[in-house]
Amino acid sequence: MQFDPSTLVYNDAGLIPAIAQDHETKEVLMMAWMNQEAVEKTLATGRVTYWSRSRQAFWTKGETSGHTQELVEFRYDCDADAILVLVNQTGAACHTNRRHCFYRAVQNGAVVELIQPMD
Amino acid sequence: MQFDPSTLVYNDAGLIPAIAQDHETKEVLMMAWMNQEAVEKTLATGRVTYWSRSRQAFWTKGETSGHTQELVEFRYDCDADAILVLVNQTGAACHTNRRHCFYRAVQNGAVVELIQPMD
Repeated sequence: MQFDPSTLVYNDAGLIPAIAQDHETKEVLMMAWMNQEAVEKTLATGRVTYWSRSRQAFWTKGETSGHTQELVEFRYDCDADAILVLVNQTGAACHTNRRHCFYRAVQNGAVVELIQPMD
Repeated sequence: MQFDPSTLVYNDAGLIPAIAQDHETKEVLMMAWMNQEAVEKTLATGRVTYWSRSRQAFWTKGETSGHTQELVEFRYDCDADAILVLVNQTGAACHTNRRHCFYRAVQNGAVVELIQPMD
């Protein structure tokens, strides 16, 4: 069956959540949003492209920072309302310059920072 | 710093996306939604609890299926608008009885099923 990006389930704003996972380490790097055109761009170019809700613009990861996400595999879930992209991540995935965005954990009720910004 | 669930960023429906990752294999199992009370229940009980948008009810994973998610670590991201729970998953995380929900991949434009339902 050919994949048709219009068959994914987008929310009222036309967006679908996309999780980026490091292809090698399997770290969950970040979660952001795509619209249908971002899905198409990601598949066509092999460069992971989100839709920035704050800027209301396409956001090809690494375009300004150099911290690109090269697409290794594009997956989607049972309900077709969430995407998982496996990527080769260059440098930091997080805008805080950390390797990934999920760097805060709750341990015994307290917030713990798991990793520091990269040099 | 003590963790305050009210400091997470919930959407207009009072929900925040939550990604479940297998603590051992690091597979991304599923993505669902929590509200503040589901976050509190998850942390208080150690049993991952979502908010079911279709049923408009709490959804403690495995309550009916037995496919529980035991919380290993609760993390959240840089913008505090996405959650990552590391879990010990019993059985299938997906309602299709597959180990995880992201079982469809797009390869050369075609949809490929990566895993089958569990026995």
